[in-house]
Amino acid sequence: MDAKNAIARILEEKKEIRQIYWVACGGSLIDLYSAHYMMNAESAKVESGWYTGREFLTAPPKKLGTASLVIACSHSGETPETVEAAKFAKQAGAAVITMTHAAKSASDDPEFISFVYPWGDNVPVSNTPAGITLELAAELLSAQENFPKYGELLKGISQMDQIIAGAVKKVNGGLTEEFAEKYGEEPFFYVLGSGPAFSQTYGFAICSLMEMQWQNCAYIHSAEYFHGPFECTDKNVFYFLQKSAGRSRVMDQRAEDFLRNHTDKLIVIDALDLGLGAIDKSVVDYFNPILFYAMNCEFREALAKKHNHPTEMRRYMGIEKY
Amino acid sequence: MDAKNAIARILEEKKEIRQIYWVACGGSLIDLYSAHYMMNAESAKVESGWYTGREFLTAPPKKLGTASLVIACSHSGETPETVEAAKFAKQAGAAVITMTHAAKSASDDPEFISFVYPWGDNVPVSNTPAGITLELAAELLSAQENFPKYGELLKGISQMDQIIAGAVKKVNGGLTEEFAEKYGEEPFFYVLGSGPAFSQTYGFAICSLMEMQWQNCAYIHSAEYFHGPFECTDKNVFYFLQKSAGRSRVMDQRAEDFLRNHTDKLIVIDALDLGLGAIDKSVVDYFNPILFYAMNCEFREALAKKHNHPTEMRRYMGIEKY
Repeated sequence: MDAKNAIARILEEKKEIRQIYWVACGGSLIDLYSAHYMMNAESAKVESGWYTGREFLTAPPKKLGTASLVIACSHSGETPETVEAAKFAKQAGAAVITMTHAAKSASDDPEFISFVYPWGDNVPVSNTPAGITLELAAELLSAQENFPKYGELLKGISQMDQIIAGAVKKVNGGLTEEFAEKYGEEPFFYVLGSGPAFSQTYGFAICSLMEMQWQNCAYIHSAEYFHGPFECTDKNVFYFLQKSAGRSRVMDQRAEDFLRNHTDKLIVIDALDLGLGAIDKSVVDYFNPILFYAMNCEFREALAKKHNHPTEMRRYMGIEKY
Repeated sequence: MDAKNAIARILEEKKEIRQIYWVACGGSLIDLYSAHYMMNAESAKVESGWYTGREFLTAPPKKLGTASLVIACSHSGETPETVEAAKFAKQAGAAVITMTHAAKSASDDPEFISFVYPWGDNVPVSNTPAGITLELAAELLSAQENFPKYGELLKGISQMDQIIAGAVKKVNGGLTEEFAEKYGEEPFFYVLGSGPAFSQTYGFAICSLMEMQWQNCAYIHSAEYFHGPFECTDKNVFYFLQKSAGRSRVMDQRAEDFLRNHTDKLIVIDALDLGLGAIDKSVVDYFNPILFYAMNCEFREALAKKHNHPTEMRRYMGIEKY
């Protein structure tokens, strides 16, 4: 299935979509955030909601119904909350698109419009959940209302592979090593970011660090930082800042300016230094999380080497019953 | 101003509200979350968005306009992002309600419908931002569509003062002391919660602990905990769980069950043990954050005594320029 055809098929049946709900858990939920953010910022017609699977089930949106589109992503295809949410949405009359890496899994069921995506190194962004969801959002916007940024958005997706390749080289030219060597023994630290990229601030914390490195940390929104969390800042507390390109940059810049004067332990990764300026200004915001996800993978790999703790090592997930 | 009259006045002018946006920063933003959550779960008509002030300005919702109601809360009345957002919304044609503790501040301007709320001990919940916003949401729901829980919701607000008084006594019968004495020297810990109360999970972390106690910590959603963060759990890592009454309780229960077997350092505060079961089941969800906010105040006060660090002490906020 491709995004254009999926949306066309849905609109042929539904005529109109008024709500779009993005539903998943953990890392998969993170991947859906940028498209959700884009819908809120760009659509005059469609309401967008972003839900962790269980919460979509315990307190579903009242409007969920025949004018709704639910996009549910589960990497394994079997995440109970996500599969249950997709079925629940279908029963409520919504159109349901599922995304999964696992063909023939519960998510890849004929009752849904399913995308089975490849995984691993060298998979183009256009084939990843983050790319597919941006494209789905763009197709829906374009089909139902005026979306003048459509061409720029699709072009942006096609540019990302080259940008990421360059950025990977660049951060591995010293920054990932600095992170692992200088800060690899920190018992705890803060990760900051904002805008669409706040999803990957959260993602770096909960997936790359907590899950894959058993590394205690906290994620803080760069703007919210000044309304409480900054009181923890001290010369001795390490901060990792994801500095976005685009409209949310002002929030990250403010945090950086403060951090430069209040801690001796700081790493800033700057989307503009990493090549994101090549994307058209009108849509660049939505690509920050895709770039930062790729960077998160490099930083966690450096930490994994330093800790001698492979990123695939787990003690509970998929091992214990819970 | 009272909620019923405010909504009546807005609907007289606007005829119909289709979007409601809750805008503030830090602690004030936290107070608006439950009403936002309720709108999403209860309204078949109105879309609800919840924004930190600066992000509302950098990436405003495309639909912001004459059918929108913006509710902007600033305790000091002068929070630049919030005041700017309120003015921006007004210029976009939206109805704007402001809430502030400071009469004659920039937020308490005649161009807005302003609520000036009292502050301090013994202020009834109905006069706090958390209570006012639930009432505003209930009045809007009731005026524009069928909202059968209206009576239960208003009754719930009136019940909270007594419930909180009992809960304060109860947690001070050993639990706040255990928190301060046993865990007061932890360099870092995790706070968990879910549903509407996730706002006060965040609030306990960023306001009570980071801001008021310079205490490093992280806030984790109880359902998301199982999709990454739980890999950090160890006998030696302290967790503080806010266990809600109502529909989100299943998520907190699951986290509690896991934590009981995987750490020796755990405090659970249970909304049902603390008296929230007195609220009607149909609306109890929305009162968890109000209860937990009052509990956060007790726990932080115990920590303040232990640390000899008054909760009003700041090193940056209101002291430095940033």
